[in-house]
Amino acid sequence: MPRDVKSSVYGKVLLVGAGPGPADLLTLRAARAIGEADAVLYDALVSSEVLDLAPPRCLRIQTGKRAGKTSMPQETINRLMLRLARRGLTVVRLKGGDPAVFGRVGEEKAFLQAHGVAVEIVPGITAASAAAAQFGFPLTHRGEARRLLVSTATVTDGAALDHGWAAAADPQTTLALYIGRDQIAGVADRLIALGRAPATPAIAIENAGAPHARAIAAPLAELPAALAAAAPEGPVVILVGEVTAQAQVAIPASRPLQEIRA
Amino acid sequence: MPRDVKSSVYGKVLLVGAGPGPADLLTLRAARAIGEADAVLYDALVSSEVLDLAPPRCLRIQTGKRAGKTSMPQETINRLMLRLARRGLTVVRLKGGDPAVFGRVGEEKAFLQAHGVAVEIVPGITAASAAAAQFGFPLTHRGEARRLLVSTATVTDGAALDHGWAAAADPQTTLALYIGRDQIAGVADRLIALGRAPATPAIAIENAGAPHARAIAAPLAELPAALAAAAPEGPVVILVGEVTAQAQVAIPASRPLQEIRA
Repeated sequence: MPRDVKSSVYGKVLLVGAGPGPADLLTLRAARAIGEADAVLYDALVSSEVLDLAPPRCLRIQTGKRAGKTSMPQETINRLMLRLARRGLTVVRLKGGDPAVFGRVGEEKAFLQAHGVAVEIVPGITAASAAAAQFGFPLTHRGEARRLLVSTATVTDGAALDHGWAAAADPQTTLALYIGRDQIAGVADRLIALGRAPATPAIAIENAGAPHARAIAAPLAELPAALAAAAPEGPVVILVGEVTAQAQVAIPASRPLQEIRA
Repeated sequence: MPRDVKSSVYGKVLLVGAGPGPADLLTLRAARAIGEADAVLYDALVSSEVLDLAPPRCLRIQTGKRAGKTSMPQETINRLMLRLARRGLTVVRLKGGDPAVFGRVGEEKAFLQAHGVAVEIVPGITAASAAAAQFGFPLTHRGEARRLLVSTATVTDGAALDHGWAAAADPQTTLALYIGRDQIAGVADRLIALGRAPATPAIAIENAGAPHARAIAAPLAELPAALAAAAPEGPVVILVGEVTAQAQVAIPASRPLQEIRA
């Protein structure tokens, strides 16, 4: 079989969704990509269980650090992926959740392709889906939630600055907020100012999808205080909407989850 | 080991996301659940490749039919799941995409739990994620798309009736529309009336995630005509927003995809 000159010279980068943490929530395609990787560059949210699927010879490079520590600059990550790919290595860029959702996949793909490197994207389970499945509530529900709005927030001095949130106020919208825990107070205030009922059921889920996940449920107006009291240490996804009232307090015995109801 | 009386009497129902079609886009957890099922009830959008993972002895029951044919009423599906679970069988309810997103998981779970049946939800890759990964565009993008709005539409006589779409008009919102192809004209009109630019890049993807996927790209105002001309036969997901301009025309050679650019 003739060798593919381009791929043997430039290699390939796979931008792969690592999902919410447990290895069995990877797609089969993602698990195979990791198992065949020569080099893995991974974000802070990627679990060790997922990284363990990489072969022993695989280079493992951490690009993100949590809890305020310095992450690798995007430009450095891009150059590193390019250098490894040009050595002819199969490079897997592992991102928590789904790479298309707040995963900077656009920037990384554009850079690599501009430099002649083949790029493939492998989707992953995003935190909102993992949280909903684990705690047994839907993200949409007939007559109750017609749509799902997945958003970050731009917050300065505690005030949410982003003005594109009108649908967030609609009672038929489930909100999935991928925000820092220091942003929740500003965001809750903003949602209520936009007209979302203060009593709207809401839930903050720490380490969504993982066996040690924890759910903190409270009405929207009280969620910031409940979350502060719970003092989560892991990443948190926040869901706001009537559907979250369906979240299960009783956690299946096979999944030792902690639950606090505010 | 003492038998778990409840589970041996009532069995269990797993509400499982079948993802976009290819078996390797199932999560490992979903693939295992299907491989261990005694009975599978599957929707019209579930691929035969996914169904083939069920063991030979497994009961296979189709609950949904496509192209206007009659589907099984929800009440019949509920009763059937209950009857099978009460025989002590492990029942897998397979839904295309992610069961939490327009999958009626709330209704089915409430019914089963009210009848004492254990329910577990296994998340799946939703069509928007599959489409973005396959055609190489992100769903969010720094400075271009701050949020993702996943929505259906209520359309009567060609006019979109749903009034909760204000965020849909914001240029920083990527819209993922899970709508029938007969609804796209009404929805595009409504979005433009709400203030979304007629020139906003948009893309309709037929059979997202599958090897025979097809992308039809056009400005929002022209998408209904482009889609009508393309006459898709498979399910279509529509993405609207600046990010869709990043969709790749050149499809990797390993994935023989057709592409029409309007």
